[in-house]
Amino acid sequence: MASIFSKIIAGEIPCYKVAETESAIAFLDVRPLKRGHTLIVPKKEVDKLFDLPKSDYDGVMDLAYRVGAAVGDAIPCVRVGVAVLGLEVPHAHVHLIPIDTEKDLNFSNERLSFEEEEWVSTAQAIKAALK
Amino acid sequence: MASIFSKIIAGEIPCYKVAETESAIAFLDVRPLKRGHTLIVPKKEVDKLFDLPKSDYDGVMDLAYRVGAAVGDAIPCVRVGVAVLGLEVPHAHVHLIPIDTEKDLNFSNERLSFEEEEWVSTAQAIKAALK
Repeated sequence: MASIFSKIIAGEIPCYKVAETESAIAFLDVRPLKRGHTLIVPKKEVDKLFDLPKSDYDGVMDLAYRVGAAVGDAIPCVRVGVAVLGLEVPHAHVHLIPIDTEKDLNFSNERLSFEEEEWVSTAQAIKAALK
Repeated sequence: MASIFSKIIAGEIPCYKVAETESAIAFLDVRPLKRGHTLIVPKKEVDKLFDLPKSDYDGVMDLAYRVGAAVGDAIPCVRVGVAVLGLEVPHAHVHLIPIDTEKDLNFSNERLSFEEEEWVSTAQAIKAALK
């Protein structure tokens, strides 16, 4: 069965998309630790990041570089943290999380939720900051 | 003043080295969350990962790909987690951490310490698994 991320990539499940390339997609995490928490997902459905073919891994990391910088420019934060855990969805993904302290990058923390217009404006702000 | 990582790169401070390329170095974190916790550090001293020139970022991520796979092969774990926070040392670095559950990737957790021979054998096991 296709992962939830493959369904998002196929357009079967909606997302707040930030950017897309031939090999990867970036969209807002719907259970964010902070506003601007964004996922980078390879289009190839592979469970573990380091099991991806190098070209797909490069596609993910190239997009993370562009989107990571944009998140840092668009969202007030001390820096943009990166995390890969992958224990919840068996489809490799990179978390980009605006953080102010070490404690902000803790997946046991409460997840945020936003009104529709806040999701849209957050995605738009990151898109506008893309270089 | 040179960061502690630049001093390690210059050989002024010892480390348990796992791998080295022209642009990056991999060595065991001396305050590990788990056995096998490894840092990937660019030789260029830049505070934030996404502020690195793309070629140096690529050098870090290329080494992370090779070493991440080796850590997963050498150290019993469910998968190898990745984290970038960078709030403690102002020199960009990627943590590779063998994890079994989400809670293992939490920088508030207690740090481990080992006997000299365990540090050496851990670094050797990861080196031996490099492809």
